[in-house]
Amino acid sequence: MEVINIQEKFTRVEGYWNPHIVAELNGQQVKLARLKGEFVWHHHETEDELFYVLKGTLRMAFRDKEVSIGPGECIVVPRGVEHKPIADEEVEIMLFEPASTVNTGNLENERTRTNLQKI
Amino acid sequence: MEVINIQEKFTRVEGYWNPHIVAELNGQQVKLARLKGEFVWHHHETEDELFYVLKGTLRMAFRDKEVSIGPGECIVVPRGVEHKPIADEEVEIMLFEPASTVNTGNLENERTRTNLQKI
Repeated sequence: MEVINIQEKFTRVEGYWNPHIVAELNGQQVKLARLKGEFVWHHHETEDELFYVLKGTLRMAFRDKEVSIGPGECIVVPRGVEHKPIADEEVEIMLFEPASTVNTGNLENERTRTNLQKI
Repeated sequence: MEVINIQEKFTRVEGYWNPHIVAELNGQQVKLARLKGEFVWHHHETEDELFYVLKGTLRMAFRDKEVSIGPGECIVVPRGVEHKPIADEEVEIMLFEPASTVNTGNLENERTRTNLQKI
């Protein structure tokens, strides 16, 4: 039962769009990631995803709208909903999602990350 | 797909030790609560609980130790582990736990809260 300091954990997060695991509970994981630039359109078949922004402003594009999520704000992207995260400047996020969630969802490409590091 | 501003949501949280729901995903809930004083010793039979501190310092007593969790820090209390949250001064927390989780765990008493408000 370690006390997890999120900012301290962020010093160990390497690269962009590369989620690192900081906690696991009830089959879910808490992940940290640093984002910059545009990600790819994707969806998750069976997983809802919570994005909580700690630093910067995350733009989340959906097929019919776009929203901005600032520090201290979060959004739940339900399973099946196509989305594309965009970070015009560096963004730090915390994710809550099932352990089965892959960052690129239904796609497998050069941005897909598996075997995530636990920090 | 509402953008959820946590501090704005906190303006709607009433009372102490009274969790309010702000998001649901994958059978889990994100809850906000304001704490002050001592809670009761309890455990959760089947639920792991994540406490993320936003304001103040939460003391978490276990039978064999005690830890302090400050702003930007979190802890996972695994199922079955007895714990007692203590807030010497007002604390604001975000909880991530299964929808089935009851605040007093294995106990039912005057501090038990059910039918939580969604804000």
